[in-house]
Amino acid sequence: MSQLKGACIIGQSGGPTSVINASAYGVIRTALDSDCITKVYGAANGIRGVLDDVLYDMGQEDAEELELLLYTPSSALGSCRYKLKDSSVDDTDYKRILEIFKKYDVRYFFYNGGNDSMDTCNKISKYMQSVGYECRIMGVPKTIDNDLWGTDHCPGYASAAKYVATSCMEIYRDARVYDTGMVCVIEIMGRHAGWLTAAASLACLSGEGPDLIYLPEVDFDLDKFTDDVKRIYEKYGKCIVAVSEGIHDKNGTLIAEYGADNAPVDAFGHKQLGGLASYLAGYIKGQVGCKVRGIEFSLMQRCGAHIASATDISESFMSGKAAVDYAVEGMTDKMVGFERHGDEFGNYVCGIKLMDLVDVANTEKKVPLEWINAEGNGMTDEYIDYALPLIQGQPDRPLRNGLPRFAKLKKIQAK
Amino acid sequence: MSQLKGACIIGQSGGPTSVINASAYGVIRTALDSDCITKVYGAANGIRGVLDDVLYDMGQEDAEELELLLYTPSSALGSCRYKLKDSSVDDTDYKRILEIFKKYDVRYFFYNGGNDSMDTCNKISKYMQSVGYECRIMGVPKTIDNDLWGTDHCPGYASAAKYVATSCMEIYRDARVYDTGMVCVIEIMGRHAGWLTAAASLACLSGEGPDLIYLPEVDFDLDKFTDDVKRIYEKYGKCIVAVSEGIHDKNGTLIAEYGADNAPVDAFGHKQLGGLASYLAGYIKGQVGCKVRGIEFSLMQRCGAHIASATDISESFMSGKAAVDYAVEGMTDKMVGFERHGDEFGNYVCGIKLMDLVDVANTEKKVPLEWINAEGNGMTDEYIDYALPLIQGQPDRPLRNGLPRFAKLKKIQAK
Repeated sequence: MSQLKGACIIGQSGGPTSVINASAYGVIRTALDSDCITKVYGAANGIRGVLDDVLYDMGQEDAEELELLLYTPSSALGSCRYKLKDSSVDDTDYKRILEIFKKYDVRYFFYNGGNDSMDTCNKISKYMQSVGYECRIMGVPKTIDNDLWGTDHCPGYASAAKYVATSCMEIYRDARVYDTGMVCVIEIMGRHAGWLTAAASLACLSGEGPDLIYLPEVDFDLDKFTDDVKRIYEKYGKCIVAVSEGIHDKNGTLIAEYGADNAPVDAFGHKQLGGLASYLAGYIKGQVGCKVRGIEFSLMQRCGAHIASATDISESFMSGKAAVDYAVEGMTDKMVGFERHGDEFGNYVCGIKLMDLVDVANTEKKVPLEWINAEGNGMTDEYIDYALPLIQGQPDRPLRNGLPRFAKLKKIQAK
Repeated sequence: MSQLKGACIIGQSGGPTSVINASAYGVIRTALDSDCITKVYGAANGIRGVLDDVLYDMGQEDAEELELLLYTPSSALGSCRYKLKDSSVDDTDYKRILEIFKKYDVRYFFYNGGNDSMDTCNKISKYMQSVGYECRIMGVPKTIDNDLWGTDHCPGYASAAKYVATSCMEIYRDARVYDTGMVCVIEIMGRHAGWLTAAASLACLSGEGPDLIYLPEVDFDLDKFTDDVKRIYEKYGKCIVAVSEGIHDKNGTLIAEYGADNAPVDAFGHKQLGGLASYLAGYIKGQVGCKVRGIEFSLMQRCGAHIASATDISESFMSGKAAVDYAVEGMTDKMVGFERHGDEFGNYVCGIKLMDLVDVANTEKKVPLEWINAEGNGMTDEYIDYALPLIQGQPDRPLRNGLPRFAKLKKIQAK
């Protein structure tokens, strides 16, 4: 395919992860080293930075500082939750994006995000094709939710999973230290897909995991839940429960809403959830009468870079690098995904596959029901086999004063 | 002093820490290797195990498994919050303890805990002296609260501080990822002393820490707090706040109680606090109108062994070892404390000092007011200089399947 010379933009969007910057670094480093790519711009706060003409010149950053992006949580370029309208309804934003692309001679656009970001990516790609502007557009996935369609797993999931499994093991030890009864309800992120909550089951491998695990893939019943907890509590005097924030009853009503009916809504129409652990803890306290503690892993589960998976970091970098390599070769309109291979010894090997953006955008991949036990309160070995290779390895992250040394970018604005 | 031959008991009490087992291992390993100590018993759930005659024979544990205690959070022998009455009021428990001591020929008693545990230790010591039973009794401190009198710092504090500082840095990155306003209120443990909340200021060293830090050493005023947050939010569009769970107004009323008046009370008369972050988040949301998130570090801050300080682990071990060494030499009725020295190059060196139990029991050491800034919303460099050496070093903790490999004790009951 013909060589295309021009600048590139990398943007980050949606909720951050511990390793989204490792993907961005994969894009930035590879693009800076490419002969085809003349300039590398980072968009401030995703597509907003393009619309507002706030682009950082990544070529002016120190190489060592850029490399620290491998170990730096959250989106270093800033994120947004801005939703593009369909261009058939209102093409104002698209015209503006085209204007900026022309201004900076942008011929490559890499967008690093989840479902909504792939949708944004797809819309821009379609618009550029419709107006005949030659530009190669690639999606670089990230999500702790692991819910992107068509890829074996998503960059960002494994590190969050490792945080969840490790913290569950530690809490398991802590929560049974006293000679008195204790129920612990741990709330884990995941609105529609229970992948991250499922990771709590990895702690069960050593017998130090939650007794009960509830995902949004299965309808949640408060009475059944109470019976489950009572049965275990009466036997052991302790019970640890992991629940996904998105669990709902058979009518689709979120259990989180049982406690708080009027949660605020974000720009994508997603309810801002929270307080589920404390609601369920209070409910169980009333039913069982023992000491109950509600725990939320909150932001820590998605920004805990100190316990990131080294496998996740290297795969995240690889996905960013592949996006640039394939785009330079002529690919466009694709998301970089992973496929799982085994080597000759049956060991896990992760390969790259490309998927059409249109297929990925706004499609959610849920946990297979056959990976959830018959009772709907735990995971099967199939899940463990799937997840375990992903969380391996501890990164050799740099420290200063015994604390993380995160990347500090100069963020020099392009003119 | 005369050599005293006999068995020893080690018990753990109060809230656990990431490294309390490193102290216990210091006791157990040193006692097992001692010529004077004939048997090493672990009391199940602290003094309750003595009263109930549930003692584990530590000599039957595998040496490798015992060594894993260095990296295993929570109290491996189990804990309790049982409070001994004064023997002048009711000596039933004391008679029972003496009976058990005689039954197993116990001549050494090591108690691993905080303020209340040192009180227990002191009471037992005084009783044994009063009845003329020769027995050497030593307190081995632990507390994430760092509030024990007379010692430079307490085992367990540094690891919790490292968790707090690291997590604050990660949250700092996460909480400012969007191009929209955000206030984050982080609740940190500490009822009367703000040591652990002060550790949030370590994150400020790299410019990635909370904007505001409130300790219980200073009266908290909701209007002043609101002004502080508004000032920072208006300037930066973001504000991160760290608050100690024990902050209170000038009348001594806990701010946590503004939201929840009737919190339950534990056996020592301590209120079971919680929900402060969510109360303050809701309050600020009402005042500022922006997105606000309340975060509780909950149990994770005291059981996060995966991010323990290697310095803390080695000092914890050292304190347990010193307790045995000094007891064998003839010391009794003391708590092992730390004193800080500098070597010839001005580097931090931690030495052992012994303190009378009676002086330590039930005395709380608070953060010096001169280490808190004039505004009462941040820490001075004196605190940083104090805390920084304590959090250094990453332990080489063993993993299995990419997850922690904690000690699994056989816990064979002594006959």
